[in-house]
Amino acid sequence: MNDSRNTATAPAGHDGRFERGLEILRQVSGVQQPAVLESLATIAPDLARLTVEFPYGDVYARPGLTLAQRQLATVAALTALGNAAPQLRFHLDGALNVGCTPAEIVEVLIHTCGYAGFPAALNGITVAREVFQARAGLDFRPTVTPSGEDRFARGSAALSAIDGRAGELVIASLRDIAPDLARYIIEFGFGDIYARPALDLRTRELVTVAMCTALGTAGPQLRVHLHGLLNTGGTREEAVEVITQMAVYAGFPAALNGITAAREVFAARDADGERDGDGERDSGGDA
Amino acid sequence: MNDSRNTATAPAGHDGRFERGLEILRQVSGVQQPAVLESLATIAPDLARLTVEFPYGDVYARPGLTLAQRQLATVAALTALGNAAPQLRFHLDGALNVGCTPAEIVEVLIHTCGYAGFPAALNGITVAREVFQARAGLDFRPTVTPSGEDRFARGSAALSAIDGRAGELVIASLRDIAPDLARYIIEFGFGDIYARPALDLRTRELVTVAMCTALGTAGPQLRVHLHGLLNTGGTREEAVEVITQMAVYAGFPAALNGITAAREVFAARDADGERDGDGERDSGGDA
Amino acid sequence: MNDSRNTATAPAGHDGRFERGLEILRQVSGVQQPAVLESLATIAPDLARLTVEFPYGDVYARPGLTLAQRQLATVAALTALGNAAPQLRFHLDGALNVGCTPAEIVEVLIHTCGYAGFPAALNGITVAREVFQARAGLDFRPTVTPSGEDRFARGSAALSAIDGRAGELVIASLRDIAPDLARYIIEFGFGDIYARPALDLRTRELVTVAMCTALGTAGPQLRVHLHGLLNTGGTREEAVEVITQMAVYAGFPAALNGITAAREVFAARDADGERDGDGERDSGGDA
Repeated sequence: MNDSRNTATAPAGHDGRFERGLEILRQVSGVQQPAVLESLATIAPDLARLTVEFPYGDVYARPGLTLAQRQLATVAALTALGNAAPQLRFHLDGALNVGCTPAEIVEVLIHTCGYAGFPAALNGITVAREVFQARAGLDFRPTVTPSGEDRFARGSAALSAIDGRAGELVIASLRDIAPDLARYIIEFGFGDIYARPALDLRTRELVTVAMCTALGTAGPQLRVHLHGLLNTGGTREEAVEVITQMAVYAGFPAALNGITAAREVFAARDADGERDGDGERDSGGDA
Repeated sequence: MNDSRNTATAPAGHDGRFERGLEILRQVSGVQQPAVLESLATIAPDLARLTVEFPYGDVYARPGLTLAQRQLATVAALTALGNAAPQLRFHLDGALNVGCTPAEIVEVLIHTCGYAGFPAALNGITVAREVFQARAGLDFRPTVTPSGEDRFARGSAALSAIDGRAGELVIASLRDIAPDLARYIIEFGFGDIYARPALDLRTRELVTVAMCTALGTAGPQLRVHLHGLLNTGGTREEAVEVITQMAVYAGFPAALNGITAAREVFAARDADGERDGDGERDSGGDA
Repeated sequence: MNDSRNTATAPAGHDGRFERGLEILRQVSGVQQPAVLESLATIAPDLARLTVEFPYGDVYARPGLTLAQRQLATVAALTALGNAAPQLRFHLDGALNVGCTPAEIVEVLIHTCGYAGFPAALNGITVAREVFQARAGLDFRPTVTPSGEDRFARGSAALSAIDGRAGELVIASLRDIAPDLARYIIEFGFGDIYARPALDLRTRELVTVAMCTALGTAGPQLRVHLHGLLNTGGTREEAVEVITQMAVYAGFPAALNGITAAREVFAARDADGERDGDGERDSGGDA
């Protein structure tokens, strides 16, 4: 409770959620007095308390994902939604504060263009540029990779690693109606983007699940990439965690619909006796 | 027609829709010459006329919801969409003009965070703060409530009042895959938010139906909360009215898909012989 | 490759996509050194290269739609999404650069209000006004049409031309639950908007397919307007092209879900032996 004396929020309960949340919010924001508390003091102090208690005290405090993983997922989701620039700025800064590298962050932003389009990715980069420039000593030199040859072969390999069967079905289903769209997905989506070295496939799939859940308009693709997350070393616990986290950024309906997709994917894998990611073995049964 | 002489819009028809709409737009905007008319004069005067005729002359002029209810629904929807700050500002001001209290408005904004996430709610609050500050004499002291104990019990009671059966099913379905998400929905969504005193359950459900319709990504939740609106005293007429109003803010597809949900919910209740809200009895058969 | 010397992008591959894309981007932007390349140079030069290669080198370079048609579709989609103002500004300017008239552009923006709501349309107009004002010599006098009489009859005629059967079914399905919404769709949506002279029905349907695909929340309406596009002279190739283009602005999931809708509509028409638009006959079989 002594923490709340320093802030302009309403009195917290006795369950320790506010204190726990404030500690995490301080890590993410990098300051002792996060601005969101002060800015809400005169109009909605209860919302300030709720913002500390639920997103940070409940969700971010959970095991299952690191703060760095959570920040990358949030950055991807807010970039894809494209309608929350102040929060995207905060969490881009927060990603740096919890140990994400500028290169990882830029790579997540580039990754969003396949799922939310180029405008979303470009506007995310604009905010990131401002955040990076505000840090005088930030050491960042952008990766420059050639587009290179063999985009189709490279993309096919990435797609195969992510989700051989479901991915193949999507591509096959386009053959009679939009074969070039299928080729673009392989060459551009998987060959140009997924195959880039700065982010591993598991992290790409984690942020893809975050984006598809938050957007709420990509149900079939969410299912494909839940398989993809589990096929590239991710766990069911991680899937449930990142979907749950989206309740904070896109609301409970988005998270609930994401869980519905996860339930179907998990059941399908159980029925097929499929093996999930290696990480599965250390995850507890609580997800 | 003499009204249109004073404005920069195109000539209106003879059906009185423009005059009726302008009168309502004046009430909502609080000014005799609403700025939207002048601002469109040089580029799209027909759109100015259409903006008066359809949203105000057709929709807002309808019985079934008060102007205050309509403004709260619009504020909720625009906050949830998160991509129309100028219009949110206009309708926050409009809500005050038609008699909504600052406390009600803030409560609607806090309510949005469960359905559209914290960024949406926080950005809505930012605009509201500016609107409130621009009114020199506005008497507003924010409600400060403690988070208190018994969040789960309080949330369960609110959920039960809103929709015993459907809500229970959602919670039960999460038990094997994301039990903590179920707990958050009860403790945070219903215990922290719905149970707050500044807005009654019926109004909460009305604005929830508005938000879920406008977002277009929350089909299952729209159905749950249509039941909720009818279970907390709302009427079928109110449900159809608020869905119809969303055609103005999110387009006809959103409204049409909302009506499809309503049709299913009404049919299910007819089949079950369920009793709708008390208000149902005075509503005419025109909805 | 000599083009890339003049820009700040990463080295392009040997497949000519960069050079081809840059040429088209120059046409759309109206400048030799498009700003997007420079602005990304210090943070994500690879994204600059990808922005030239995929949207312009792959998608815009395709036959099947003119650059003017593509720009109108993009303007409609970005206006409807409402979360990408910088790109909307660029493509409004781009639409003028590739030969769209100001009147056509304004008409597309007015058209969006039926599908994405008035806030989207009004915010699009605000950006267009700034773009038009920045062009000193732009010759534009807005069309002013009276609302006129017989809105219902005029709307019914437009609806009938677009999609007699499917449209009738939608209207009929509203009769028992929201008959006034049905009337508004006919009077306002089709009578006030579609019947305006500045844009032909085929172009209206093309940009409607673009919007519904990009929004991702209007599945039933996307199907109705795919029929509408084919009923008003559009081709299956055009439908597939405009859906594919939405991968650029709303991501691959949006485009894939759009193709799923197109596949269903095409199959239904094949089963019914229905005749598509006149243009169908000259389109190749590659779509």
